[in-house]
Formats: sequence, structure tokens, C-alpha cells
Amino acid sequence: MYNPDPMNWFDSIISPTLILNKERCLKNIRQMAEKAKEANACFRPHFKTHQSAIVGEWFRPFGVSAITVSSVSMAKYFSKNGWKDITIAFPVNIREIHAINDLAKSIHLELLAESVDSIRFLGENLKAQVGIWLKADVGANRTGIPVDDHHSFLSLAREINSIKKSDFKGILTHAGQTYHSDSVEGVKQIYRDATAKLQSLRESLHRAGFKEVKISWGDTPSCSLVEDLRGVNEIRPGNFVLYDYSQLHIGSGQEDNIAAAVACPVVAIHPDREEIVIHGGAIHLSKESLERNNMCTYGQVALPATTGWGKLLPGGYVKSLSQEHGILSLPKKNLADIHIGDLVVIVPIHSCLTVNLFKRFITLDGEIIPTMQMEPP
Amino acid sequence: MYNPDPMNWFDSIISPTLILNKERCLKNIRQMAEKAKEANACFRPHFKTHQSAIVGEWFRPFGVSAITVSSVSMAKYFSKNGWKDITIAFPVNIREIHAINDLAKSIHLELLAESVDSIRFLGENLKAQVGIWLKADVGANRTGIPVDDHHSFLSLAREINSIKKSDFKGILTHAGQTYHSDSVEGVKQIYRDATAKLQSLRESLHRAGFKEVKISWGDTPSCSLVEDLRGVNEIRPGNFVLYDYSQLHIGSGQEDNIAAAVACPVVAIHPDREEIVIHGGAIHLSKESLERNNMCTYGQVALPATTGWGKLLPGGYVKSLSQEHGILSLPKKNLADIHIGDLVVIVPIHSCLTVNLFKRFITLDGEIIPTMQMEPP
Repeated sequence: MYNPDPMNWFDSIISPTLILNKERCLKNIRQMAEKAKEANACFRPHFKTHQSAIVGEWFRPFGVSAITVSSVSMAKYFSKNGWKDITIAFPVNIREIHAINDLAKSIHLELLAESVDSIRFLGENLKAQVGIWLKADVGANRTGIPVDDHHSFLSLAREINSIKKSDFKGILTHAGQTYHSDSVEGVKQIYRDATAKLQSLRESLHRAGFKEVKISWGDTPSCSLVEDLRGVNEIRPGNFVLYDYSQLHIGSGQEDNIAAAVACPVVAIHPDREEIVIHGGAIHLSKESLERNNMCTYGQVALPATTGWGKLLPGGYVKSLSQEHGILSLPKKNLADIHIGDLVVIVPIHSCLTVNLFKRFITLDGEIIPTMQMEPP
Repeated sequence: MYNPDPMNWFDSIISPTLILNKERCLKNIRQMAEKAKEANACFRPHFKTHQSAIVGEWFRPFGVSAITVSSVSMAKYFSKNGWKDITIAFPVNIREIHAINDLAKSIHLELLAESVDSIRFLGENLKAQVGIWLKADVGANRTGIPVDDHHSFLSLAREINSIKKSDFKGILTHAGQTYHSDSVEGVKQIYRDATAKLQSLRESLHRAGFKEVKISWGDTPSCSLVEDLRGVNEIRPGNFVLYDYSQLHIGSGQEDNIAAAVACPVVAIHPDREEIVIHGGAIHLSKESLERNNMCTYGQVALPATTGWGKLLPGGYVKSLSQEHGILSLPKKNLADIHIGDLVVIVPIHSCLTVNLFKRFITLDGEIIPTMQMEPP
């Protein structure tokens, strides 16, 4: 039964708590920075995963000075925290033009466009110089112009060049389909196919007189798995800073890369159905799920350890989530050692969404690391 | 193209914004309060849906003085905001005993237990009087003691009575299986079956000498659909204050009951695949989904209107969500009228999870209504 020991750090945790293994996080940053350097690619990490000014600072010793974000509000947060070169890798939301102009006056800002309407609106409303990328769809079918539609790229690149306050940067893509790949080789194949098409598009642009055309590439699975990233000029992975169970499932991260998880108190035990109930629900973990062996999991289960949490318990998983409850399915042999008031640690399916639900991380040293969720809206 | 009109309230919305139709919300509160009164049941609404001190005040004119919450932190927030009678309808998290004692010293607090371990821990650690309910599982298979296991209830009720600082309140349940019912009649049948079993359990407790044994009943579908709630002593619905697409799907709420939705800017249009892309993703809507006609929807689509949003667009739905992007599938005829920079309004699948992702509502009068997410952690 819960009887707190002041010397035991875990005993100070009383409700769902986002734990950060800083050592793993730093290792993840170093590995990706080295990979970018080997490929002579600009490392412009996506900060939407950690959303934290303090974690952001951990990138600077690796020479990182340019970052990626997913919204204007995130760009404002990181610009306030000393970042002077930011790409908002999201199709420009023209309703935010005033905030965009404010940012563009004080930092080097890069935007993303994919339609003539957005570009013309920027042309009429920009008050300071920005870089504009064209978004290419290389198969994710989310946003962007199909990469094979060279005609549209040429015409939009000309639109961008006709605007006084903008520089055409090049082609940016996010091969989100790597998340649905069923093998490591599949991820690499997506990279090879897509970069071949992007390079062909760049040649078309070169032939049409566009001299400097960069290729900016995103997504953690391919940036983690492809050995040689020389086919692109810039990489923008985000999730790699923490990884998660999705990345482990794809094969892009190993268990000891996973740097964030949620410690949750056990509030009920149901041995008859081999389940326990934790305080830790959809508002802590998000309802991101993964199909695995015909079962749907909302997170994987570990026990507290000096590294934050130990190995994932084979056969254990988060079976369902309501607002604050999590139902965990656990093998009988694990159930025997778990009591009301104990902590279990849930490795999230998608760390970006889980982090977004907390206002701070706590490191294994007890350091509190606020995120931008701590800020007023 | 976006050209803001200072007289048009919607034009002031520049990023994903949680809109509240206050008139509908007040109507929902009044209807449920009247229903509780007719049944002579205590109306103890669950405040986990709106999470807002201001919305909470709207209940007082209907005689509401007792509320339900889902966590100790939510109990602290509402007790700070003047609520003096609070049930934490979640299996007691014994690691929070200090905060529980602080609350119990200043307000009338009711807790939920389902195991002898929790009850004994409370017996040894409570510093002020609380009420304790036993949680019954009437078929949701989430938490609680199976309602037919009278023996366990008798033994746990005796444990509760053996504690100095507690009063045994009765049996509390949440028939969460109503959310999976495929018909209105199915929801009513769940209520009839479950209340018959709860009353039989109460008779067993009466025979064993427990005099006052109340039955506390939750869940919006049954509280909305069952005409006569006299079978229970207390109702604790939460979602009814806003309703959502899930409730519409079940039949427990009508379209004009839905009181909250998210206005989202259009950032890309893909007529070829009959899709638009909005700024509005999993971090705004949550990844709650609903299977409907073999399609998975993450929200339904409407256009701005004087009531906040108009009728749901037939055939339109949120097809997928990433962190900040929403992909909407829309019939061709609707696409023709939608432009980059327009707003669309997304009616959430599960309003509780959507509200939790924002720090405030905005009413149609432009009033800002903060939620507890605005508070520091």
C-alpha cells in the first residue's frame, strides 16, 4: 500500500505525470544532428513534438539555429524564446496575416503555400520579407501539389517570384505515408521514390530559370531509417526527439530511444478479467491508437525504473480510454505484483499528442520543464 | 478572399476557436434540471464536460448546489469557485490523500471506492469526514463491483462503516454501455435492467441493516432518453450541457441541442479528391472517432451562421486528423462555395475531449469563458 518514501522520486508523483528521460532525449538529438551533418543537409528540427523552450535549447550545442513549427502561435512562442529562423510548415492560414507580418518583421520567417489564392493574398498583404516554400504531395495525400504536376509548380513558383516581399525557397514535403509502412525497407523505398521525383521536379524548375531550389524533407521514420540523406537539402523531423510506440512499431526507433512516458496511479484491479484501471485517460494520453495483432492499443505498459520506466511488459497494453480512466490489459503474472496506489508507466502511441496534453515534463532529476501549453492562449 | 468586416463577429476568428452557443447550453441545463425535479432526484451534474467556473454558475438558478467531478484537481478548481458539495466520481486515487484531506476539511466531499485496500487506506489516513459511495458495474466493464455480487457490496459497506471519518452513501454507477447502444429503446432497456438490479442490491443492503442507501446514476444518453427517472435518487449527467455528434448519433440529443463546436480556417482545397484542409487537428478536436456507414468520422461539418453554425452538411465529415491538420471530405456542391481563408465549423464527436483541448470558450456575443485549463498545473 502507498507509503511514500521521501528518498524515492516516484513516490512524489500523485497524479498522471509526463516523465522525460533527458539522457535519451539528448542522445536522440545528437544522432539526428550527426546524420544531417554527414548528409550536408540543414537540420531544421520540428519543435511541435516537445513544444518546450528548454528542450529547444538542448539543440543549440549541435549547431541548430533554424527550426520548424506547425502554427503561428508556436512560431510566436519560439521567437520569444530566442529563435530567429523559423519555418511554419503548415499551409499558410491567411487569417493570421497580422501575426505573420509581426513575426516577419522581427525574425527570418518561412511559409508554406500550395495555392495561387494564398500566394496572391500574401502578395497583397505581406509587410516584411518572408521565404515561401511550395508544398509537394509525394503520396501522403494530406496537403500539397502532386509532385508530378510540374506545370503547377512552375506556375506557382512564378507567382511567388512576382511578389516583392517573398523569396521562393524550393519544394517542401512530408512523406506521412511512412507511418503506414509495414517494413523498414518500405520506408526506405518511399524515400527513394519520393526524392527521385522531387529531384526531377527541381530539374524542371532549374530549366525554367529558377536557380536556387532547395528540397526540404520531413518525417521521423525516413530520417531515422534512411542511411544517406544526401538527396535532400534540409531535414525537419520532429518526433525523433522523444520517439514513441508508433516509431518502435515501424522500426524507426528502438525501445531505448523512447524518451517520454506518462506515470499513472493504479486505482482499481480486476484480476478476473486480467485488467487494472489507472488514473490516466484520453485527456492524458490522447486517443491515438494502433492496431497490433488485431488488437487496438492506446499505449504500452511498463513499470517504474531508474531509467524512468523499464522494458515494456509483453502482453500488456492500454485496452481502452475514457476521459480520465485507462483500462490496461495485463498478463496474470504481472497483476500479482501490482497494487492499488502503485504507479505504472504508459509509453504513448504518439508522443506529440501526449505532450500536447500536459503543460510540463518532469525529468528523472525532478526538473520541471514547462511547454508552451503553460502560456495563456 | 479573407477581407475582414469589423461588424462580422466571425471575421475576428483567426485560428481554431471553441464556440459556445449559450442559449442552447442554458436550454440543456433547464431541461435536465426539470427532469430531475419531476423524478424527485438530486441533480448533481458532472462538470468534467465544460470544466468552467462561469458555466458552472449557470446551474445555480436551477437550484443546483451539488456537483460531480472526475479528478481531485477538478474538485479543487470548483471548490475554489464556490462549490461546497462535490463528488469525485472516480475510484479514489490514494496517492492524492493530502489533497483529499485538504478538500474534506473545507467542503462536503464524496468519494468512490470499490476495493477493500482503498477503503482501509482511507480509514487509516482520512483527517476529515467524507461520504463514500461503492461503485457498481452494471455492464460497462470499466470499473466497479459487478452489481449482482451482493456479498462483496455487503462486506465493503461494512468496511466503510467501520471507518470513523466516513459515511456510507450508497451505490453509484455509470452505465457507459449506453454509448454503444444502437437504438433509443436499447438505452431505455439498459436503464430498466440496471435499475432493477441496483434496487435488488439496495434491498440486500437494507436487509443487512444499512438504512439509508442511495442510488446515484450517470450517463447522458439514459438521463436524456428515459422519461421517468424515479428509479434512482441522484443523476450525474455531464455531456448533456453541450451534447455532440455522438449523442446525436445515439439519439439522446438533437442537432439544436449541440452547444459547442470549433471554428476552423480553411487552408487548402483539393477539388479533385473532394477534400478541404483546415487548421484544426487532433490537438483541437481530439482523435475521438465514430464509425458511421462503414466510414470513420472525427467530426461533422457545418458553416458559420447566426446560431454559431448552421445545419450539418449532409455527406460532409472530418476524414482524418493529424496534429494540426484536419482533412474534410465534402460533396462537390459544397466545395464550390468554400474558399481559402473561409471558416468552417466542426461539431465534435465527443465534446468533453474537445473542450479539454482549449483553455476557453467564446460565446456568440464574443464573451470569453475560461476553463480550468487556463489554470497553472
